Amino acid sequence: MSLDDVLSRIDADLPEALDRLKQLMRIPSISTDPAYTADVDRAADWLVDDLRSLGVEAGKRPTRGHPMVVGHGTGEGRHLLFYGHYDVQPVDPLDLWHRDPFDPEIQETPKGRVIRGRGACDDKGQLMTFVEACRAWKAVHGALPGRISFFFEGEEESGSPSLLPFLDAHADELRADLALICDTGLFDGETPAITTMLRGLLGEEVTITGPDKDLHSGSYGGIAMNPIRVLGRIVASLHDATGRVTVPGFYDGVAELADEIAAQWAGLGFDEAGFLGEVGLADKAGEAGRSGLEMVWSRPTCEVNGISGGYAGDGFKTVLPSKASAKISFRLVGTQDPHAIRDSFRAMVRGLVPADCTVEFTDHGASPASVMATDDPAFEAARVALSDEWPRPAAFVGCGGSIPVAGYFKTMLGMDSMLIGFGRDDDQIHSPNEKYDLESFHKGIRSWARILAALT
Amino acid sequence: MSLDDVLSRIDADLPEALDRLKQLMRIPSISTDPAYTADVDRAADWLVDDLRSLGVEAGKRPTRGHPMVVGHGTGEGRHLLFYGHYDVQPVDPLDLWHRDPFDPEIQETPKGRVIRGRGACDDKGQLMTFVEACRAWKAVHGALPGRISFFFEGEEESGSPSLLPFLDAHADELRADLALICDTGLFDGETPAITTMLRGLLGEEVTITGPDKDLHSGSYGGIAMNPIRVLGRIVASLHDATGRVTVPGFYDGVAELADEIAAQWAGLGFDEAGFLGEVGLADKAGEAGRSGLEMVWSRPTCEVNGISGGYAGDGFKTVLPSKASAKISFRLVGTQDPHAIRDSFRAMVRGLVPADCTVEFTDHGASPASVMATDDPAFEAARVALSDEWPRPAAFVGCGGSIPVAGYFKTMLGMDSMLIGFGRDDDQIHSPNEKYDLESFHKGIRSWARILAALT
Repeated sequence: MSLDDVLSRIDADLPEALDRLKQLMRIPSISTDPAYTADVDRAADWLVDDLRSLGVEAGKRPTRGHPMVVGHGTGEGRHLLFYGHYDVQPVDPLDLWHRDPFDPEIQETPKGRVIRGRGACDDKGQLMTFVEACRAWKAVHGALPGRISFFFEGEEESGSPSLLPFLDAHADELRADLALICDTGLFDGETPAITTMLRGLLGEEVTITGPDKDLHSGSYGGIAMNPIRVLGRIVASLHDATGRVTVPGFYDGVAELADEIAAQWAGLGFDEAGFLGEVGLADKAGEAGRSGLEMVWSRPTCEVNGISGGYAGDGFKTVLPSKASAKISFRLVGTQDPHAIRDSFRAMVRGLVPADCTVEFTDHGASPASVMATDDPAFEAARVALSDEWPRPAAFVGCGGSIPVAGYFKTMLGMDSMLIGFGRDDDQIHSPNEKYDLESFHKGIRSWARILAALT
Repeated sequence: MSLDDVLSRIDADLPEALDRLKQLMRIPSISTDPAYTADVDRAADWLVDDLRSLGVEAGKRPTRGHPMVVGHGTGEGRHLLFYGHYDVQPVDPLDLWHRDPFDPEIQETPKGRVIRGRGACDDKGQLMTFVEACRAWKAVHGALPGRISFFFEGEEESGSPSLLPFLDAHADELRADLALICDTGLFDGETPAITTMLRGLLGEEVTITGPDKDLHSGSYGGIAMNPIRVLGRIVASLHDATGRVTVPGFYDGVAELADEIAAQWAGLGFDEAGFLGEVGLADKAGEAGRSGLEMVWSRPTCEVNGISGGYAGDGFKTVLPSKASAKISFRLVGTQDPHAIRDSFRAMVRGLVPADCTVEFTDHGASPASVMATDDPAFEAARVALSDEWPRPAAFVGCGGSIPVAGYFKTMLGMDSMLIGFGRDDDQIHSPNEKYDLESFHKGIRSWARILAALT
């Protein structure tokens, strides 16, 4: 099989590939808004038809929400499952868009040509990089390069309510040797990345009740315990002076970076000062002695995402409130056990609450980190393939946020995911005027062709 | 002059006195709502007429808001200035009232007879206790008992915007030897009180800015400083483990209670457990080793009245917010200097803010405590007079909240105030179904007659 022929075919077919992407982008498949239900369905149909044109046995699968699209190629060898999502974010505020979000256009910009419109990057453009690579392969060789299945979701932007039940009901059908997911970004414009560490997330809401009603701070100030004072003590005790999280046992399961990964990250030349400077900060807030990339990719964190209590309006009100609450989240790495940490956190908080005050906890989810088995040679092979396409070598990177589907693939199907994507920081996904660089689209398709050549 | 004749006259005239109070209560003098401006004015006219019927040279004085009523009697000797306010709180929510708030009625209750309606206690009923005492004196003796001036405000329930300019413009006219203010309560149903210590109030709002925009806690959690973390540290550092406020120099000017006052307070039999139990608490939150009455009357405090930052709605949002803020107030006693404490507080807070975060302060007012010169024999004379009227001896007490007019009298006119009132905890002032016990009204009038006999 000649990869060069496939790459040439991709180059020649780029205008048609962009036309196909535009067709898909013109369908306003906003999953969260019931007004667009028929459009979401239409996007699923479009993909089924497109997969069938590649010789893939594809169908639309009903769920209690929007349909899944599942297709299976007929090849042999290592079984790869490609995941993407065909639904998009809402477009509000519409008046900030410079043109109809569902009338995509190729535009010249100072940084190069882009395709502009909702879903250009997230995730229609990214999804189609893989489909187009398969199409080119099929055009050149008459068949896909190996055993490839396709799994497209229509509810990713609305919380994936049907994903878990669907994976559960179709585990045997969907389980492959490796999942490929195209919903992430480049490290920078020149450096591709394979995300192999996804932080987990534990969300807790803590509500402290002091007096059983709001009081006047003149009448009761001094004698009655103020729940904001209790909450302040809790918040202040979450980190020690070196930035470490103080929850007992929190660091159980947190390993040091492997030397190889540490070397790759060092080679990325991450601009810590620039990264912080872009948001108006200068100093790293995490654990002393850790690099910035460790702080956002491979170290666990504790953040207070919201705090409230008493009077927060204009002016001043001398209230001594009955309640105060905080939403606190932990980003987890390695093999940290979210349930053990929840228990330890709650015990620690209870220890800080005076006897005559009460604390209530609300569970806002608990998912462990996903760490891919990068000792599978497929990961190194994909890294080399990506490095061949882009100016700088690819790296195995972490992801500060969570990509739930990768976690579900791991926990429910026992399947690792290789997260490879070509988005950029300025793609404005979820915002007005979303775009995808034509370079991302073009080199993305070429990257997948190289990876397929390496893995099949 | 025979006090007994005056007291008998008060007893005989009670039905008429109640009728007069009802007349005043029927005027809906809600000062904060412009729809009632003419009514506020009408209440002022009613008082001017009533004072004139006592031989007092009285008039309505314009301000930029509602008028003041000022009247001067013609007697000799110690000059007393009586202050009350004739405006009332709004009546919302109207559907919680059992009858028209401005159609007052005498009602039987399990605890005795009450007059029910807006302003029954705050402050029309209280104000009229003094006026009726003067009326009885005049009826018996043909003249008021001494040199008495009257000063009625129509904006107390809407922040007293005209009070300071009016005091400033009429300082010489209003300055007396002593002010009498009837806008406070009994210690309990059997024990009258003269409020001689009013805590001051310093209000500060602290806003911490970390990143210059809201961030995703997945992408930035760990590396970017979270302003809620900074604010939590500030809140937690305001008190030490013994409940003392940690602002440097905070306790400068805070004296121990005089032995005599301490003995009076001990004799009040304050039910700390009951006081806290009514609001669902069991343990005193103030400085270790202090009594409950000290905590609310004579010790300074620091309370967080409001805190906010990040996402406080339903569910969870993994935001790392740009800003977090807290409204913090200090109740001040003795000769604590609010401006020095503000400076010290701000310096302490600045020391807790990381170099790349910023802090902004908003000034929400600073007023020192008022401590009356109870070594003036008039205070002890009034205390004895009150003790003669009620079942248990009167005490010099403190007030946790602030009564701004007493502070202004002190700072602007150099005049001490004797705060004596007959309200009870269950009068529901500012709430639906406000009432005033007929016992408070009747014994209140008799109390003022006794005090006037003692002071003139």
